Amino acid sequence: MQFHHHGYVSGDPRVQDAAAIGLDRPDDLPDELDVLVVGSGPAGMLLAAQLSQYPEVATRIIERREGRLVLGQADGIQPRSVETFQAFGFADRIVAEAYNIGWMNFWNPDPEDPRNIIRTTRTEDYALKISEFPHLIVNQARVLDYFAEAAAHGPGRIVPDYGVEFVGLTVHDEGDHPVEVRIRYVAGDRAGQERTVRARYVAGGDGARSRVRDAIGRKHLGGISAHAWGVMDVLVNTDFPDWRIKCAIASTAGNILHIPREGGYLCRMYIDLGEVPEDDHHRVRQTPIEQIIRHANEILHPYSLDVKQVAWHSVYEVGHRVTDKFDDVDVGEGHDPRVFLMGDACHTHSAKAGQGMNVSMQDGFNLGWKLGSVLTGRSPAALLSTYSAERQPVAQQLIDFDREWSSLMARKPDQISDPTELATYYLGTAEFPSGFMTQYGPSIVVGDAAHQELASGFPLGKRFHSAPVTLVADGNVVQLGHHARADGRWRIYAFGDRDGSALDAWASWMGSHESPIARYTPAGADVDAVFDVKAIYQQGYDEIDPTTVPAVFRPETGPLGLRDWEKVFAAAPTVWNDVDIFDERGLSRDGVVVVVRPDQYVAAVLPLSATDELAAFFAGVLLPAR
Amino acid sequence: MQFHHHGYVSGDPRVQDAAAIGLDRPDDLPDELDVLVVGSGPAGMLLAAQLSQYPEVATRIIERREGRLVLGQADGIQPRSVETFQAFGFADRIVAEAYNIGWMNFWNPDPEDPRNIIRTTRTEDYALKISEFPHLIVNQARVLDYFAEAAAHGPGRIVPDYGVEFVGLTVHDEGDHPVEVRIRYVAGDRAGQERTVRARYVAGGDGARSRVRDAIGRKHLGGISAHAWGVMDVLVNTDFPDWRIKCAIASTAGNILHIPREGGYLCRMYIDLGEVPEDDHHRVRQTPIEQIIRHANEILHPYSLDVKQVAWHSVYEVGHRVTDKFDDVDVGEGHDPRVFLMGDACHTHSAKAGQGMNVSMQDGFNLGWKLGSVLTGRSPAALLSTYSAERQPVAQQLIDFDREWSSLMARKPDQISDPTELATYYLGTAEFPSGFMTQYGPSIVVGDAAHQELASGFPLGKRFHSAPVTLVADGNVVQLGHHARADGRWRIYAFGDRDGSALDAWASWMGSHESPIARYTPAGADVDAVFDVKAIYQQGYDEIDPTTVPAVFRPETGPLGLRDWEKVFAAAPTVWNDVDIFDERGLSRDGVVVVVRPDQYVAAVLPLSATDELAAFFAGVLLPAR
Repeated sequence: MQFHHHGYVSGDPRVQDAAAIGLDRPDDLPDELDVLVVGSGPAGMLLAAQLSQYPEVATRIIERREGRLVLGQADGIQPRSVETFQAFGFADRIVAEAYNIGWMNFWNPDPEDPRNIIRTTRTEDYALKISEFPHLIVNQARVLDYFAEAAAHGPGRIVPDYGVEFVGLTVHDEGDHPVEVRIRYVAGDRAGQERTVRARYVAGGDGARSRVRDAIGRKHLGGISAHAWGVMDVLVNTDFPDWRIKCAIASTAGNILHIPREGGYLCRMYIDLGEVPEDDHHRVRQTPIEQIIRHANEILHPYSLDVKQVAWHSVYEVGHRVTDKFDDVDVGEGHDPRVFLMGDACHTHSAKAGQGMNVSMQDGFNLGWKLGSVLTGRSPAALLSTYSAERQPVAQQLIDFDREWSSLMARKPDQISDPTELATYYLGTAEFPSGFMTQYGPSIVVGDAAHQELASGFPLGKRFHSAPVTLVADGNVVQLGHHARADGRWRIYAFGDRDGSALDAWASWMGSHESPIARYTPAGADVDAVFDVKAIYQQGYDEIDPTTVPAVFRPETGPLGLRDWEKVFAAAPTVWNDVDIFDERGLSRDGVVVVVRPDQYVAAVLPLSATDELAAFFAGVLLPAR
Repeated sequence: MQFHHHGYVSGDPRVQDAAAIGLDRPDDLPDELDVLVVGSGPAGMLLAAQLSQYPEVATRIIERREGRLVLGQADGIQPRSVETFQAFGFADRIVAEAYNIGWMNFWNPDPEDPRNIIRTTRTEDYALKISEFPHLIVNQARVLDYFAEAAAHGPGRIVPDYGVEFVGLTVHDEGDHPVEVRIRYVAGDRAGQERTVRARYVAGGDGARSRVRDAIGRKHLGGISAHAWGVMDVLVNTDFPDWRIKCAIASTAGNILHIPREGGYLCRMYIDLGEVPEDDHHRVRQTPIEQIIRHANEILHPYSLDVKQVAWHSVYEVGHRVTDKFDDVDVGEGHDPRVFLMGDACHTHSAKAGQGMNVSMQDGFNLGWKLGSVLTGRSPAALLSTYSAERQPVAQQLIDFDREWSSLMARKPDQISDPTELATYYLGTAEFPSGFMTQYGPSIVVGDAAHQELASGFPLGKRFHSAPVTLVADGNVVQLGHHARADGRWRIYAFGDRDGSALDAWASWMGSHESPIARYTPAGADVDAVFDVKAIYQQGYDEIDPTTVPAVFRPETGPLGLRDWEKVFAAAPTVWNDVDIFDERGLSRDGVVVVVRPDQYVAAVLPLSATDELAAFFAGVLLPAR
């Protein structure tokens, strides 16, 4: 964590200095703004936290609810999401309070007495094999609390406008603020009043019944299956020995997906309520909690639950829907989008795969830096078209996965030939539910794969997978990826060649007037304001003198012109670190340049010599600084 | 982290429910209180945080300053202190923002050209070899912020009374509140007013010029050496390659102890200003900062500093003083102490060994649970005499160590025969500056060592050294010691025998009417309110059924009578943990009981069969519950 950069500060270093609009933020919604976020769910709150890093951008987030979410529905947190939390500064804290999924156990009918269930398989959770972060369970309300803190502590000082409902919008053909939005106050002094605000852009994260989606005429396609589930968060005493382990339970009485929750006591159970007759007309949703608990006890036989408190419960029929496009522009319309959909507003599905909140947050992460870049003049508005192009296929993939997982979970024992089949499927598909299968295709923000073999462990379009390296300046082991914060900057990792000569030449070019730094960094801004350039040497940290590396790796920034000591890393193992990132990520010993987007996805892999290609890549996505 | 135990709660689980006095805490100081803490430094604030866990105890903390400390002097944090932070719930957060000392480098004159310094030795820091926590550098002000948060979020809701000065006190012979304390308001509406409050106990953490010490007539013995040091916290640009690594620099021009600080830029330098003439009369303390910087540059030659900002600086002459006794009762006076001294009020020394704040915090940790136990009627007042008996020798040890380290650091090059000598001393004494040499002698709170060989890695009177184990209920690896919070409870770790039969017998006794649980737990309190009893089996977690272990290891507590799932651990290595605590800590495979005090020090080591001895130990320190 770097601070004291503008001079000594006392107090919490996690609270950044307010800047620009954050210095004097009006209490009430202004008449005109840059971005209006609708809905303070995971996508919307992440977007607010991200845009708080662009304090020049006037962002507001409206939420119909009168205040903070108290009881959240979602709770499954992929390692990919924890990586994202790290970039927003709160991974450690949320890991400490969450339930950490170490195992998943599978229960099936006892062949000797099928009225009883027995444990058939213990399966290690896969998370720590594909990320440095675990797979967690924690209440959505807490995730939102942390993002709210990040939004409020960022330079933009963004706080939600609670008690404000989205009514409708009209996108006009012209004007600086072409989106006319009708809102209604539903709480506080002005409750009942309607008014209009004008925005440059609107991001709708307003849930499965999204009015923003309706307003732009998008269709939510798909349907509801004929299968119902009860879900309950309960505090119990029980003789079921796996109460604190995630389990898939298949019994002759039905199925349960069992998820321990944060805090050491609470658990969530998804209880199979079976097929729903066609003429049910959602009557199944009225199933009383007593009946759900009774059914859970039948499934768990010979074990039983003594329920002490039901914190929350619901009944739902599994739906799978995805919106045809995630913005307001049809292909070939010839203008750039103004309205975007995120989260449940554009993809809804069952809760059981623990995916929804995670995919929604990545929607917000994908959109945030793009809006920030366009609104600060760094990037052309065409960048915004990549949002739907990148996220809609991910949502489709999610729906397909969830449909398969849901139906596997809902099988009757007589449909299961191999009791380990579910465990095998679970492990075989681990990369998807961890959040690491997302791979964005080539576009202006993902380069081509011509040089992929130089960095096989950093696949283009996939998230940058961190690995430990040594910070040369202090000899401490750090996660290279954790030095990237969600601050809207591009990361350029220059991995050195054997003797460092090609790296020197590259650094010399990067420091020259031809480089992307010179071309895209605004006059008067810090030299690393747009590009955070880091060097990783193959040598040991004690073979590198951090005061004599090329100047581009030790920029002097801020009002005091202080040298940055945290741009230079060493790969060779030390007493504190047995991993060499070159081996771990398949990096060429001739060196390689890896460009990473502000949302942590790999954008380009190039040889150190390919300076023209590097320049050409950025020419496609950035505008020369004014 | 356990929560939802009293039913589902929304919001931050780190904020505990207010209770007792914390429910309706008066804004102003009451006329009568249980404990008055004087001074909000590291000892006082830890004490406040600890007593916030005893909400029945009326505790106030007064501080002359008008508010939060902005710029702190101390910054060195031993691993032992980080362990303590863990018990108060903020280790992860402070580690994330602190500087982590991974190495210490030694610089000496270049034999080829003694006008220049060269690096002669790189030394790994020892911290991670003797604790699971690192050695840190972070501003005292931040440590106090975190303790203030712990005090405010504990059930007692303690916040400092700022702007209130201690004037004097009188200890009367009788009355429930025998300590009459005169105070003066020095800020706010009542500034200038004096008044009297009556306390049962007073803890003086009011610094080197302690008025509490004067008021009880204690002598601060020792003196000032004839050697002066300049100290400065600076933001610089420099070509000195070890700017971000802790260094001891011995040059022909003098000596520097160089300490990188939190945040990636700031460093602290202790610069040797040489011998002070006898007739100097502290004029050396007026040395201007420009002269200190010039001298630093001379020492660093051929490197140099371009100082951009001086955040803080001072000049001091090394003093070494320790108070003869840390309470108000002379040996043989026949009554129990009422007034205690902590921190700089009873031990002052040079800052360079990075010890002061750490030893002060352990003063507060030692005193806190003893006051809490006596004031809640759990323990006899005689317990309070152990405070001075335990802490005064630690302070003396500190003074001796610091005197030796200071004079080694102040040597001239011609006094140094072996340039690696300082590095050798540094490593050889590592246990002391890490905070782990403290070993309390036998007393009513440390049993005898008759059975020490059953747990050689848990020496009696030393801090309980955590190790990883598997939580049986969920199969996750946890640090056994981290399940102990600073909540005033005694921990009893029952390490199982090979087949568990002796453990079963012990558990059966612990669950019986003869056991300490039955004898000392107040009626109506949770069964684990006084004793937190945990079992550690030799087997793998998957061989233990947490629902069928002896009842004492799965208590049902709280208003819902919920079973606690976090009392049963397994030692056998798993895919997530290659450490077996029995091997790691030299534990007998016949089983062993390890009793740990509320301040984390090992109090008793006994065979599972020695139930009489266990009962006898507690009979010495606890009072039967009313």
